[in-house]
Amino acid sequence: MSGHRDHRDLSRDAHAVTAPAIPPAIAAIPSADASPVDAAQGGPPPGTAFSPQEREAVYRAIRERRDMRHFAGGQVAPEVLARLLQAAHLGPSVGFMQPWRFIRVADPALRERLHACVEAERRCTAEALGERGGEFLRLKVEGLRDAAECIAVALADGREAHVFGRRTLPQMDLASVACAIENLWLAARAEGLGMGWVSMFDPVAVGDLLGLPPGAEAVALLSIGPVHGFYEEPMLQRERWARRAPLEAVVFDNAWGQPAPWLGGVLPEPPLGAAGPNPGANGEADR
Amino acid sequence: MSGHRDHRDLSRDAHAVTAPAIPPAIAAIPSADASPVDAAQGGPPPGTAFSPQEREAVYRAIRERRDMRHFAGGQVAPEVLARLLQAAHLGPSVGFMQPWRFIRVADPALRERLHACVEAERRCTAEALGERGGEFLRLKVEGLRDAAECIAVALADGREAHVFGRRTLPQMDLASVACAIENLWLAARAEGLGMGWVSMFDPVAVGDLLGLPPGAEAVALLSIGPVHGFYEEPMLQRERWARRAPLEAVVFDNAWGQPAPWLGGVLPEPPLGAAGPNPGANGEADR
Repeated sequence: MSGHRDHRDLSRDAHAVTAPAIPPAIAAIPSADASPVDAAQGGPPPGTAFSPQEREAVYRAIRERRDMRHFAGGQVAPEVLARLLQAAHLGPSVGFMQPWRFIRVADPALRERLHACVEAERRCTAEALGERGGEFLRLKVEGLRDAAECIAVALADGREAHVFGRRTLPQMDLASVACAIENLWLAARAEGLGMGWVSMFDPVAVGDLLGLPPGAEAVALLSIGPVHGFYEEPMLQRERWARRAPLEAVVFDNAWGQPAPWLGGVLPEPPLGAAGPNPGANGEADR
Repeated sequence: MSGHRDHRDLSRDAHAVTAPAIPPAIAAIPSADASPVDAAQGGPPPGTAFSPQEREAVYRAIRERRDMRHFAGGQVAPEVLARLLQAAHLGPSVGFMQPWRFIRVADPALRERLHACVEAERRCTAEALGERGGEFLRLKVEGLRDAAECIAVALADGREAHVFGRRTLPQMDLASVACAIENLWLAARAEGLGMGWVSMFDPVAVGDLLGLPPGAEAVALLSIGPVHGFYEEPMLQRERWARRAPLEAVVFDNAWGQPAPWLGGVLPEPPLGAAGPNPGANGEADR
């Protein structure tokens, strides 16, 4: 651990392990000489800052990303699909294990069989929901057959070999895959494409359809493609299934349930889709 | 299911459930009249397109995001921290359940106790790693005490009430939290701040320290703050712990293991940190 060392020691520390073979072009940490501005005194390190316009574009993608279920058919150009998958593959993973596998469903018959799995589970979910089952059945919960592309996502087999960051929290492999999918989602929004994540299926049945080996697990059926429009707020909020909690309800200080008073004074304007001043749209309970 | 209807039916379909109270300003889908361009014929819907510069900024954040363990101390302004948490809270969640809770660790003594949990688990992980244990112990795997901010992230209690999208895959709550964390990560990069996700701890011990109620689960200790520089490639690749797989190794067509030939011809340039033509840096096996 080098927690107490200052930054001038870091490149030396890192080089102690790998000095002989790391070319200067991929040195991880600029040396103190190359980094005269003290980052701790404000501002990002030289050469790494995003312009205000770039920063706002990232926030825009985050703000305008939607879980889409309405698609416009059409196509996604192969180079665009490759960019989206590259974005996913650049996601973080625990111990850099890269546990994600993406299966493009190009065969229409396979897509129909996957859709049938989802439809079967939709019925089971409605039953399990009890009194909200009828309301649930009126929602459009997936657009698998309408979207230009369908990508199944699975956890790879052989994950038990990866202990780094997973000894006590083995589910971090799924967390990594989810981060990769969020990358893909934001990239799709930036490309003007909609995306929806369907998790309403029996993973064993879907795994069989996709030929997954033992140990691999299907976790997502992604619909990706052109849309006629993006929902202006999350569809499940618009449909009164649930509404976004105020940020203050999910942020605490030092212990569960302890309010974070600093948040009140600095909170940015509620984003589109957050509980706002319009009581007709947002001021009611979950139902 | 409205999978076979065309888009002109969608707003009607949606309104059937909620017509009386949805003001026009938040209509989910533009009507056919308002959307004369057929999205399926190429290009995003009018008014929703990102400029090439905006799109590139999103890809830049994805490409340059790093799991940081080297921090420069300093501070994060409250309004910036609020923006980051807002970005997380805008993440997708299964059934819009918003299962994430964020606990800002402002108390230095609490941060020390959390760090001690991580340090204990680091030793246990090294033992569990067997022959790679020594190599692992030489890595810097966290920067909890060096970062300006520490945010613990937990799954909320009461999640069993949420069945939508989780009847067969209950772990989708964690997937949602991970997507929220990835939003925060990308937003931090755009703000010029580093972030690291530490999952090396006993979740019961950390839950006790944070006062989590029964049913809630700690899943992340995030370090956030100024850095002296961002790694030019993932640190675990630089340190030869693992290397990024070629994209072709994680993308299949129609079935597990079946190559995706369309990917070869259109693959973008390997991003920084992908396996590239430099054999000294990337051309070796995992070790």
